[in-house]
Amino acid sequence: MDNRIEIRLSGSGGQGLILGGIILAEAAINEGNNAIQSQSYGPEARGGASKAEVIISREEIDFPKVDKADLLLAMTEVAYKKYIKSLKEGGILIADSSINVDAEDKAYKVLQVPIIATAAEKLGKAMVANIIALGVIQQVTEVVNKESLEAAVLNRVPRGTEELNKTALSEGYMLASSTF
Amino acid sequence: MDNRIEIRLSGSGGQGLILGGIILAEAAINEGNNAIQSQSYGPEARGGASKAEVIISREEIDFPKVDKADLLLAMTEVAYKKYIKSLKEGGILIADSSINVDAEDKAYKVLQVPIIATAAEKLGKAMVANIIALGVIQQVTEVVNKESLEAAVLNRVPRGTEELNKTALSEGYMLASSTF
Repeated sequence: MDNRIEIRLSGSGGQGLILGGIILAEAAINEGNNAIQSQSYGPEARGGASKAEVIISREEIDFPKVDKADLLLAMTEVAYKKYIKSLKEGGILIADSSINVDAEDKAYKVLQVPIIATAAEKLGKAMVANIIALGVIQQVTEVVNKESLEAAVLNRVPRGTEELNKTALSEGYMLASSTF
Repeated sequence: MDNRIEIRLSGSGGQGLILGGIILAEAAINEGNNAIQSQSYGPEARGGASKAEVIISREEIDFPKVDKADLLLAMTEVAYKKYIKSLKEGGILIADSSINVDAEDKAYKVLQVPIIATAAEKLGKAMVANIIALGVIQQVTEVVNKESLEAAVLNRVPRGTEELNKTALSEGYMLASSTF
């Protein structure tokens, strides 16, 4: 991991992206890093795209706001269109397969995988798409390790859903490793 | 409400303070304000006190970090001791009744009410202490109105707990109004 990585998770409300951000931050802190997790709500938050941000750093975090992200997760086309411009040059885009990614954006590293379809169809639970996405992010970036990510997931998901969420993580790892 | 208010919610992990911060921010945005909700995790986050922060502003929020808070909620003695120094002079301290508040800190506005006891004993559900606290904060500050706070609460709590959480909000309003 670089000294500081800025991650923006975007999609629609109800996709659990704030929880995803909290879990990622908690996994990072469990490894001894610093982390800030945040949501900004402006007038634009009232319709359409939702986002959550995580900054993970080996050092103390002085400036706590994500401007240009190193990694953008886009779970919907609306969110992709809204936030793609905020991805750093050379940054990583992880986009759900349902999204039409512009050829122009291919200058970034782009990983498109069926996160939502895997949640809804393979696991039968659309609500775990956020956890699958965390698995993809882990596999691609290794910003946290698998053990602390799993521990952070299990600490935050509803009791009784532990096995489902562990499976969701594994699906995320596989989506990423089979494509890279 | 002033143009910008900075709120720090502190206590122990598991008291639902991050969720409390998210709900407060979502209530604020529903009224047309801007809001940022965040958690910072440093090495100190690994033991003891936990905190979540909300900035609510009529204007766009340029500097997204809470330094000195206008309002500090302290749900545990450990959190109180850790964060009291970060309350602005003349700021508001809302502390659970279980906390020994130093006489020296009485320069601040201090409201001590039995948030945790009301949750655990009167409502029989310790987990709604965070929602009671939101009711107290609303009543004291009117930073959001009751309608948007209730809507934001109901949007975030588990299905089936709506009535319990509405009761928790009412208990919070009463705790604050019967003491001020």
